[in-house]
Amino acid sequence: MDAYFFEDFKIGERFKGKGITFTEANIIDFALQYDPQPIHIDTHASESGVFGGLIASGLQTIALTFRSFWDTGVMSECGMGAPGMDKVIWHTPLRPGDTLYGTGEVLELIPSKSRNDRGIVRMRYTGENQKGELIVTLEIPQIMRKRQVAG
Amino acid sequence: MDAYFFEDFKIGERFKGKGITFTEANIIDFALQYDPQPIHIDTHASESGVFGGLIASGLQTIALTFRSFWDTGVMSECGMGAPGMDKVIWHTPLRPGDTLYGTGEVLELIPSKSRNDRGIVRMRYTGENQKGELIVTLEIPQIMRKRQVAG
Repeated sequence: MDAYFFEDFKIGERFKGKGITFTEANIIDFALQYDPQPIHIDTHASESGVFGGLIASGLQTIALTFRSFWDTGVMSECGMGAPGMDKVIWHTPLRPGDTLYGTGEVLELIPSKSRNDRGIVRMRYTGENQKGELIVTLEIPQIMRKRQVAG
Repeated sequence: MDAYFFEDFKIGERFKGKGITFTEANIIDFALQYDPQPIHIDTHASESGVFGGLIASGLQTIALTFRSFWDTGVMSECGMGAPGMDKVIWHTPLRPGDTLYGTGEVLELIPSKSRNDRGIVRMRYTGENQKGELIVTLEIPQIMRKRQVAG
């Protein structure tokens, strides 16, 4: 899709990304480096644990929900970072063989008071699996560039 | 240090982890897979950008703040996952060559009403660089196992 700028986003608009399948190997690889809890790296220990088997790190589900959304291309020219992230909820564990689909939805549009080249688009990101079950939801106030006007 | 259980945590207690140095290579490797924004993967494009050079993905700073804390060992026996994460603020960008130190601080202790084998320890995590500047702060309500008592 075409790259957007701040002015192009509309409240309620949704951008759904393509699926990304989590394998046992990439769940363990991520966790070994970034989140080495037994439920994310040990198939045997995790079997007798709370979740009854290996589950992906919640940080990996956030990252690949965002990645799936990012690959829609809508934010490729306007993204200027973000001051934070809020309201992360992990709803259902993601397991080896599951596929994650990330969607970004526009919650709020806040033009910058001090800089007229940008604004904040408060986005709600949703990660769902192949059955449409919620995996993770979160909000990020994204700083987005305005379209440059010849001046 | 010795592994803790729910009963061992005290409000205000802090656990500071060892440093982890971010290289240009591991910033780019993480971002290529999880957060491929130009400010995280392109040293040339990022030079003329908002941050004046390559910066680590905020998701990577969260993950390695937690990893630095995790390696203290305090949560190695009691961690049972978490329902979410809140109040993430990225204060200062982390750049190639910087070192990140993660600290976990106990904010609140909430025994489970329905299950007497666990409780929630609301933790505040802080990532700082080698100058003591805040990089990232966030809160996670960690589900922690109680010490098993012979019955």
